[in-house]
Formats: sequence, structure tokens, C-alpha cells
Amino acid sequence: MAQKPSIPKGTRDFAPQEMMRRNYIFETIKRVFEHYAYKPIETPAMENLSTLLGKYGEEGDKLLFKILNSGDFLNGVNLDICEDDDKSKRLSTIICEKGLRYDLTVPFARFVVQHQNELTFPFKRYQIQPVWRADRPQKGRYREFFQCDVDVIGSTSLLNEAELLNIIDDVYKKLNIRVVTKINNRKILAGIAETIGFPDKIIDITIAIDKLDKIGLEKVNEELSTKISAEAIAKLQPILLMKGDFLEKVETLKTTLTHSEIGLKGISEMVELFDYISDLKLYMPCELDLTLARGLNYYTGAIFEVKTLDVAMGSVCGGGRYDDLTGIFGLKNMSGVGVSFGADRIYDVMNELNVFPEHSIVSSQILFVNFGHAETRFILPLLKRLREKNIACELYPDAVKMQKQFNYANDNHIPYVAIIGEDEIKTSSITVKTMQSGQQQKMSVEHLIDFLAQK
Amino acid sequence: MAQKPSIPKGTRDFAPQEMMRRNYIFETIKRVFEHYAYKPIETPAMENLSTLLGKYGEEGDKLLFKILNSGDFLNGVNLDICEDDDKSKRLSTIICEKGLRYDLTVPFARFVVQHQNELTFPFKRYQIQPVWRADRPQKGRYREFFQCDVDVIGSTSLLNEAELLNIIDDVYKKLNIRVVTKINNRKILAGIAETIGFPDKIIDITIAIDKLDKIGLEKVNEELSTKISAEAIAKLQPILLMKGDFLEKVETLKTTLTHSEIGLKGISEMVELFDYISDLKLYMPCELDLTLARGLNYYTGAIFEVKTLDVAMGSVCGGGRYDDLTGIFGLKNMSGVGVSFGADRIYDVMNELNVFPEHSIVSSQILFVNFGHAETRFILPLLKRLREKNIACELYPDAVKMQKQFNYANDNHIPYVAIIGEDEIKTSSITVKTMQSGQQQKMSVEHLIDFLAQK
Repeated sequence: MAQKPSIPKGTRDFAPQEMMRRNYIFETIKRVFEHYAYKPIETPAMENLSTLLGKYGEEGDKLLFKILNSGDFLNGVNLDICEDDDKSKRLSTIICEKGLRYDLTVPFARFVVQHQNELTFPFKRYQIQPVWRADRPQKGRYREFFQCDVDVIGSTSLLNEAELLNIIDDVYKKLNIRVVTKINNRKILAGIAETIGFPDKIIDITIAIDKLDKIGLEKVNEELSTKISAEAIAKLQPILLMKGDFLEKVETLKTTLTHSEIGLKGISEMVELFDYISDLKLYMPCELDLTLARGLNYYTGAIFEVKTLDVAMGSVCGGGRYDDLTGIFGLKNMSGVGVSFGADRIYDVMNELNVFPEHSIVSSQILFVNFGHAETRFILPLLKRLREKNIACELYPDAVKMQKQFNYANDNHIPYVAIIGEDEIKTSSITVKTMQSGQQQKMSVEHLIDFLAQK
Repeated sequence: MAQKPSIPKGTRDFAPQEMMRRNYIFETIKRVFEHYAYKPIETPAMENLSTLLGKYGEEGDKLLFKILNSGDFLNGVNLDICEDDDKSKRLSTIICEKGLRYDLTVPFARFVVQHQNELTFPFKRYQIQPVWRADRPQKGRYREFFQCDVDVIGSTSLLNEAELLNIIDDVYKKLNIRVVTKINNRKILAGIAETIGFPDKIIDITIAIDKLDKIGLEKVNEELSTKISAEAIAKLQPILLMKGDFLEKVETLKTTLTHSEIGLKGISEMVELFDYISDLKLYMPCELDLTLARGLNYYTGAIFEVKTLDVAMGSVCGGGRYDDLTGIFGLKNMSGVGVSFGADRIYDVMNELNVFPEHSIVSSQILFVNFGHAETRFILPLLKRLREKNIACELYPDAVKMQKQFNYANDNHIPYVAIIGEDEIKTSSITVKTMQSGQQQKMSVEHLIDFLAQK
């Protein structure tokens, strides 16, 4: 006998209930994007490997799923290379020209460069598609997962950053998830690193600042001493000791970074952005957070990370400003800013908080019991009338035992069951059972239509 | 300099206007599916090759996109096989365990078998996802394209076939495309082949019948003589000469197939289905068409094909009854029936007929001109109020020349532009320009909200 089939590890099937809830998330996010005039695009699942390789670091290259060339892919290939130590790597570049997309950002940059003459800038786009990574699967980490990206490219205005914060605020308010958005600016981080004389230690410094609350100033300085000089640590102290509200922190930064042009630029960007935030009267709190660095190297200005307040979960959204994303494909001076919503984590958070609205599960409103051929032919035109009134309904296809048909209604969350037997056909009436209460009532066809249309 | 980037041949980018129109098609189809209580599922892009291989014939196997195993895929592989003639084929089975899905039917069968204990039967599902085939790309044929499949599995009732016809009727009526649905039954075809003594010549016989109109009876019989015996051709004549309406044709078939049990079963199924069709009062015509065979071998009962009446295009939808689809994965006696809508062809037909409704292109309703910082801070809270009323709107992010901002509105099909300068701020009013007519009018914020909410 055939073995029970399975799917590749790290991938998932989505059954109806999960799909409906996921669609609820995607639809909510899409509606918000469209309110802000972002437009949908889609790119192919497969990109040329030349588009993908070298864009995600050496680790990223290893995580790309490569697609075997079609047909006689070994034809003309000199297999002598198969003696080498890195034979797998070398052969893969010869027998694979395509790979599955790893994120939506690089395909978006490729799209903008390729179609630059057809686009109007600033170009505001959103894109909701799966991406694939050959990561080791573990809880919450999949080899196929969805990203919801929203970006504007071709404008340096900080109003775009403000708009994205507004979008984040709207999305989580609509999804009923309380969040806080942490904001930093890469230029401030660069200014700090420059000021203390270690421009390549940005990451170490942010990691150290991040540990302040947990291990205290003394231990942080101790750790830093393995990375940077004593003089640099001394210069960093005002920032480590920084206290107070947003404006006080800004003053400390201004004093500390007074000789760093890029640092001061970052501070002025941050101040302007927080001005907009106060105008927008956002529902969520936004906080300046100097510990926020974000991994990807292409960010050059504001960076964002959104965390849920009620569930311990990594970030549920993040992004930032990149001044030269399309440069890798030859189009210079295209500044952009964008954020990416993690649909899988949002799903997990909503599940844990139990905040999916009831209407996110779509079913038919009413099931018609099947008693056999004569009753069926009475019911078919009736179904048509209900659907014309936008009422989702169905007839059980087989004339099986009543109990089985009622079980079907229960399993599918169908709130009403219509019973039409000989008596009902004679009197042109319908017995309607409310599944939750078990109550039954007889009504005319017109009454039934009104009754269901009101729900 | 970097070369202008490109995408793999046979794949496509979808720009905003095309995306919106495609989404209009998908949304319309989904809404209909849901009216009939079909439920969404999704399966991973990658399936194990053991799931896919051998399900689409030898040709299909060649068209599968295979995914290279991650990491050191050649480790432990004996490369002696690379001396063989079919070395590419043999090596691919060793270095690739996964492939991209080729259609939605086999993944659906796999899904049903894998999750059989979690599902309630009859199980009504729809699935809208891309599929990939390494076909030679040509006009209208892509290597990545979307299928919209709707199936019910676990019920043998012909009411399911009737329901699918109802769905087809609704979809094309809503999309404003006139179609005809051709219906045949594999059991009738089997009955004919059995009756004339050539059970394996079903395809040749349907091809011959199909040519009747074009080349005439004499030439058809001539062609048939190279495939089947003279006696068989004689027995086939009543069917080739068959005339009249549905009932007359049924009578001819009954007489001809009187000794074929399977043929008579097919005829009685066809009669029952046409009874339901007449009850349903469909908008589209449905025709018995004995020339319809459809390629896939798993069909066992009714088969459908939908053709547009106003544009020459292949079939825009097709499907049928399969009695043993899940048998390939070890689950017997699961009869199902389903159809698949071809979104790409539907798009092309609608484009050619120019029947996309205007509202399928979504844009913001109003663009606010950006004159600089002071005006901007007046506008930000206003945008928030509009969006709370579900009005899509945007502020141009940069304070550039008016003409550039107006061009942006035109390019993005934005019907109104709001001009708020010093004067307007003083009087708390807004000048609104209707882009199509060029007319301008001044109004209060409240008036603007009402004005746009009504559109």
C-alpha cells in the first residue's frame, strides 16, 4: 500500500479555519495599505540567481532554494570539478540558473529598476507573497512563510516614515493587538560610533546598550572593554547614562554628537519624525530606542521595530529607510523606506490573545437537509434565490441519515438548518432549526430570505 | 555598471493596474465559491517529488521544476552514474527531493489523504494558487500561472455536478463574459468504445467525431479506418449521424449502447444532470458534446469545458468527476468532482472585451498638494479623519513643483486634488480640484468629508 503522504519539512498546509483567519489578517492589512494609496504588485516566485546571490550575505546565499535547470542539465558539463572540496557549491552554479525568492525587498528593487520607465515616482507599493528560506525549521520558523511589505521609493521626505507609522498604528488597532514601536536612526548610531572612534563597532555598541537594564552599567563597561578602547568607553558614558523623556535624550545626544555631522543629521531627522508623530495622535506609543540596530546593512536612516505588549513574541513588524537599495541593480539615488509585517507571528499573537472576530470564520448561513429527489428539485430554485440575495447556503448533496447531515452543519459552523419534507412542500413553508439553541420555527420562503438577510 | 536585471523566461511581474484587475477576477471568483460554501485551503509551493512524480504522465514528469537539495548535496553521491546516457535524469533523482507543484489537483488529493481524520466529508474546498511548469513559454503560456480550483470530495451525488455548473454560471455572469458549457460523460465514451469493440480507442473516436463538421462524414470514416475495424466503424455510424435536441440524442445513445452497462449508466447520469440544469434556470447554455474527452485520465464521470462566445480563446474553465483521485495516495472510495478556472485566460478575455469595471482600479480618492512644513502639519490630522471614514487619501510627500504633483495625480488615476495654502489654513477651508473637468471649488473640511464619502 502507498505510504501516507507528507509535505517537505518546514512547510505547511493551511486548512479552512486557519486559511480564513489568515485571510482576515491579510485583508485587514491590504485595506489599510489601500487607504494610504499603496498599490499592489507581485513578482515571480523564481528569480534569476544572479538577482539573488550576494544580496543577503554569505549565510543568506546558503539559504537560497535553487532550482535545477530543466532537461539534460549535465549536457556539456565538465564533471572534473566534482573532485574539488566545494564541488556541491561549484556544480550548483552550473546546473541551477534560478532560485526561489528569499524576501520581497530584493525582488522589489529589481522590479523598480527593470520597470523604472513605466513607473511614476514616488512609487508606493505593497506586496504580499510567500518567501522561501532553507533555514533549519523550528517552532515559529518555516521554510515557506508570508511577508507583507509596504514601501515608498523615490522620495526622501520624512513624511513617508510618518505615514508608515500611521499604517502600523492602523493595522494593529484594527487587528486588536496592542503594540509599541521602537524607533532609532542609523545616522545616530553611525554618529556615536564615529564620535568614540570606532565606526565599525555599531553592532557591539547597541548590544551593550541593550544589556544595560539586565546586567547594569559596570558589567556593560566590562564587556565593552573587550571591544573598544578605554577612551571610547569614557566617551560613551553620557549615552549609557542618558535618562529622561524624548527631549532630554535628544539634548544629551546633541551634546555628545556635537562634532559628528552624520550624528546631528540623524538627531534632526528623529526630532522631525517625532513632531509628525505628535500631529498624528497615534494610538500606539512610539519610543526612541538606541538599542535598536536591525541586522540588514542597507538601512541608512530611520529604523523601526514593533513589539506586542501583551504576548512575548519577537518583533511583529520592522523596517526602515534605505538610500541605495536599487544601486545594486544600477539605479542610483533612489531613496526608499518601508516596513514588513510578519503574518505568521501576527497569527500566533492573535491566536494566543483570542482576538479573531467571529465573522473571520466564513461558512454558509444555512444548510438544507436532503430527503431525496423530489425535495431536492423544490430546493434548487430556492438556493438560487438566496444566493441572489448574497446569502451563502448549501444543500447536503446526498440523501443520507438526518444525523449525519446535522453533524455536517455542526462541523462546518453552519448556524441554521432548513428542513423541507413533503408537508413543507405542500404548504410552501420551511422548518428552520437554530443549531445553537435547538429551536425550530416554520416560515415562508419570503420570511426566510428576510430572516437570513438580516443576520 | 550592473546590467539591467531581468526575470526568468516564462515568468511575469504584475504591475499595479494588472494586479488590481487580476485581484478583481480572483475576488469575484472567491465570493461565488463562498456563496456555495466552499472553503479555502492552501498547500506549500514545494511538494516532495515522491508526491508529484508519476502523476502527470512521462511528459509531465519532465515539466516538473525540481529543487536542489540544500547544503553539500553531492556528499556521498557516487558520480559513476554520470557516465550513463540518462545521467541528468538519474542524478536529479539523487540531488533533488522536492519539486514545485504542477497543478492543484494532486496536492489536493495529497491534502485530503494526509488530513482525512480532521476533515468532515463531503469536503468542499477551493484553492487559488500559482503552479509551475517547465513548458516552452509562448503567447498565453507561462511557466508560472494561477489556477482557481473548486472541488467537492466524498459524495457521489450528481447535485455536486449541478452545483459546479451553477458556480460556473455565476462566475461568468458576474465577470460579464458570455460562455457556453460543453458537457460529456466518460462513461458514455467508455460505452461507445466498448460497444464497437475498441475500449482503448476513446481518444481517436472523440477526435474523429470532433472533425465531422469540418471534414465531413466520408473523410472521418476514412481516418477512422486507420484506427479501428470496418465493423467498428459501421457500429459507430448512428452516433456520427446523431441529430436533434438533447432528448433525441439521448434516445440514439440509449439504442446504440443498449448492451453496455457503463454506457447506459453514463446516459442516465447525463439525463439526471440535465434535469437539475433545467431546474436551475442557468443563464449560460449547457450542451451535450460527445467530442469532449479532456486529456487527464483520472476522470470517470461527467466532464465539462467552458468556452467564451465572444472571443476566440481555448477553454476558460474545465473539470469533471474522478472516482479514485486519492487512491494514488492509498485512500480508496473517495469520489470527487471539481473544475478549474483559468485566471490568465479570463484576464485576456476581459481585456479584449474591455469589460473590467472602472472600480477595479483602486486609487486614493484625493491627493493633498504639499506646499511645505506648515501646510503639512495642518493636513496630517485631516488625513486621519478621512481615513477613519474609509476614504483612501494621500499627501504628496515632497514640497516639489505643483505641476509634478498634479502629474502624479493623473498618472495614479486620482480623481480629486486638494490645495491647502496659507489662505485656506486661515479660513479653515480646502480648494478641491476635479481632475477630469479642471473645475475648482472651495469647501469646509466637513463638506469635503461628505463630498468624498458619497462617491
